Amino acid sequence: MVEKKADEKGMSIKKAENFSEWYIESLLKSGFMDYSDVSGAMVFRPISYGMWELFSREVDSEFKKVGIENVYFPIFIPEKLLKKETSHFEGFTPEVAWVTQTGNEKLSERLAVRPTSEAIMYPSFAKWIRSWRDLPIKYNQWNNAVRWEFKHPTPLLRSREFLWNEGHSAYATEQEALAEKDVILNIYLKALRELFALPGIAGQKTDKEKFAGALASYSIEHIMPDGWAIQGPAWHFDGQNFAKMFDIKFLDINEKEQYAWQNTYAVSTREMGVVLASHGDDKGIVLPPKVAYIQVVIVPILKKGVEEKVLEYAISVERKLEKLRVKLDARDGYTPGFKFNEWELKGVPVRIEVGPKDMEAGSVTIVRRDTSEKEVVKVDNANKRVHETLDLINKNLYEKAHKFLESHIHYADSYEELKKLIAGNSGIVSASWCGMVECEDKVKEETSAKITNIPFEQKKKAGKCIICGMDSKSRANFARSY
Amino acid sequence: MVEKKADEKGMSIKKAENFSEWYIESLLKSGFMDYSDVSGAMVFRPISYGMWELFSREVDSEFKKVGIENVYFPIFIPEKLLKKETSHFEGFTPEVAWVTQTGNEKLSERLAVRPTSEAIMYPSFAKWIRSWRDLPIKYNQWNNAVRWEFKHPTPLLRSREFLWNEGHSAYATEQEALAEKDVILNIYLKALRELFALPGIAGQKTDKEKFAGALASYSIEHIMPDGWAIQGPAWHFDGQNFAKMFDIKFLDINEKEQYAWQNTYAVSTREMGVVLASHGDDKGIVLPPKVAYIQVVIVPILKKGVEEKVLEYAISVERKLEKLRVKLDARDGYTPGFKFNEWELKGVPVRIEVGPKDMEAGSVTIVRRDTSEKEVVKVDNANKRVHETLDLINKNLYEKAHKFLESHIHYADSYEELKKLIAGNSGIVSASWCGMVECEDKVKEETSAKITNIPFEQKKKAGKCIICGMDSKSRANFARSY
Repeated sequence: MVEKKADEKGMSIKKAENFSEWYIESLLKSGFMDYSDVSGAMVFRPISYGMWELFSREVDSEFKKVGIENVYFPIFIPEKLLKKETSHFEGFTPEVAWVTQTGNEKLSERLAVRPTSEAIMYPSFAKWIRSWRDLPIKYNQWNNAVRWEFKHPTPLLRSREFLWNEGHSAYATEQEALAEKDVILNIYLKALRELFALPGIAGQKTDKEKFAGALASYSIEHIMPDGWAIQGPAWHFDGQNFAKMFDIKFLDINEKEQYAWQNTYAVSTREMGVVLASHGDDKGIVLPPKVAYIQVVIVPILKKGVEEKVLEYAISVERKLEKLRVKLDARDGYTPGFKFNEWELKGVPVRIEVGPKDMEAGSVTIVRRDTSEKEVVKVDNANKRVHETLDLINKNLYEKAHKFLESHIHYADSYEELKKLIAGNSGIVSASWCGMVECEDKVKEETSAKITNIPFEQKKKAGKCIICGMDSKSRANFARSY
Repeated sequence: MVEKKADEKGMSIKKAENFSEWYIESLLKSGFMDYSDVSGAMVFRPISYGMWELFSREVDSEFKKVGIENVYFPIFIPEKLLKKETSHFEGFTPEVAWVTQTGNEKLSERLAVRPTSEAIMYPSFAKWIRSWRDLPIKYNQWNNAVRWEFKHPTPLLRSREFLWNEGHSAYATEQEALAEKDVILNIYLKALRELFALPGIAGQKTDKEKFAGALASYSIEHIMPDGWAIQGPAWHFDGQNFAKMFDIKFLDINEKEQYAWQNTYAVSTREMGVVLASHGDDKGIVLPPKVAYIQVVIVPILKKGVEEKVLEYAISVERKLEKLRVKLDARDGYTPGFKFNEWELKGVPVRIEVGPKDMEAGSVTIVRRDTSEKEVVKVDNANKRVHETLDLINKNLYEKAHKFLESHIHYADSYEELKKLIAGNSGIVSASWCGMVECEDKVKEETSAKITNIPFEQKKKAGKCIICGMDSKSRANFARSY
């Protein structure tokens, strides 16, 4: 009966055979998330919320180090404010959820549930900023946002409600504002690498693909197992665009009136979808050790007659593990094999098996989730070795993901080549582009690939634009994108 | 010019003369919060959000110690779910903000913006809970909630959007469910005492005043400076009420089908309003040291000719302060007096003044925000003394608030006495009550006082009900309440 249960609970779809169904199955069966009664919005169960909590607290602590302060603005935005910046409004209004009634009364003006908070924050900025002494303002919110996607929603990757940070800065000069770009992108890149074991490609978005209302956008892009790209965290330079619409002015040191220079930036729970997609395998999800809700599960192998002794031994092992999130799975009525499968499905990075033989030898068996490698170590070394193993797993996950990324960046020197690569879903295609939207549009129309970004790191020299043959300053990355 | 600015910025209303206007003035001028463009919803600026962050993280860490896990459910609740539990729906529907449109489309069913999350969480509980092995479930969310008050909204105390924790548990037995009450109430009481320096009166709500959908509610009540009571954190015993409506059933250890037993509990940003109201004075707000965004401000007294040396000395003092949130206010163009007033207005618990004389003597001057007491200490003792002073301030704030509470609890032995005390806004009136809603209603109607709770700690013996003269088991606390 237990065996049957394991089958029902376990994975049935192979990642390599059907990525998108595998993704949903691993996300649901691992208990990472669940569907809710609101179509397109998911429930964050303890594993996923715990991961977000660990990630966001770490990013938050990096933000604080560079002087960013947290605030909280209302979730509702009166329609007239959202309309103030035209391209911003046009970009977001098709996806806005509107509150039109409260209690039994009809509101005189619709309230948008925030898709992003520029329009509710900046009237306050205008009120608070009077002099150069009030600048810079480096504010951030950790909150929930709603974008009512009408395309097929996908858990985490394209969700109608998501959690994120939204940073909003105001500076006295353009130069100071621009200097924030590398600070923020480096915080994101480091957190992705160290906590999520995720690499990414940093670069500038094209004008066509930039944030609605920004002058320039910079993103970190990922490649998914199906060869499609997905946009990760981003930093946007707004120039004085919103400042002019929302009247954010100050007297500079020479008593001259100036508009403030602004930036915004964000990382969202979407990244956890990239984590699952990148690291998971046919046994289920694989949690990166630093953000794993449970880092180590101890499974006692209870042989008849010595159950109590083995359990005692398991408890003594648990006590030796320091500064780790540990679960001792002492449940009755389940075989060790069933438990192994369950914790593998749930992605716990390290399993410790303790059976009668281990007990006699004063050892434990450490099993890695990522490679299935087993290692027997003395119980006195267990704590040290588990910590080392978690580091090795993190390193291995990152290296594998990085290798995957590198091997899925292709270089096309002609439009024909690009078309073939895109059609094969082989990842990102780096190609010379003149910078004209007409060439960008043509590729989009004919191949459905867009420019994910123009990477900062140009690994190959740019030549003639593969569409129009004009000179190009840089290579752009083309891909079909989530 | 600077002096004039200080006047404009400073407090103009006395707390004792007009509490409600003083409350708004201190909250706004200190930069604690600000109005937003959404009527009845406020902006949490860095001081207030920082306080909430420190408080909620501490409560969260206590929750984790007793096995409570964080989750996140969608902010939207389909109307049919909210309707499932009748008294719950009737209790909340007059205050619900309804989403009726997304993009340009009309929704086929209205979505409530969560006033509380029972109705979106419990269908998932029903899905996840199958066997006694799946219990208990001890989940919690930290999020934003919306209740569209039509009464005059007051920042923090009665706000259309607020931040809170909402705990939702499910247990196999009534006994286990009830055992959670003291655990949670004690976590709240301890956090209020230690972090907010706030006392409260714990007790049971009457049936009339309990949470919509609960079988019994237990609250912590405060008394405000104007003599009105306000409800703080609460814990609700739902019995099997929601379980029956949402079909949360499980097979017990004897394979018999049972409904789960449930509880909910919450503490919200309202408590920060009680903090401001309780501790503030005519100079502005007073932040309890443990949750103060800035705990210590260093103000250098820059005398001509030795500015640089004094500033250097101030920096050396700053370096000596360990594990503290310190701000060195080295701004040009403001007098020390202006700075003193500003940081007093903003409630920073400790000010350190360093002037030329301090520098010569190798000392610093420590000034307490709560008592204005000054103390000169050697610079090598500064760190130790600041820590001690912060503890003393916390203790003093709590003791003052506790004394205020005690002196505002009155004992009435007749209805006439109660009426007089209530009419005088003299705080809470403890009186014997038979337990009948008719007597409770009569008092409410005739005096506008309600029963805040029936305190656990009965300091005086109960006698005959002051309304009907029947025997009563306990004294209830009557008060006009926010």
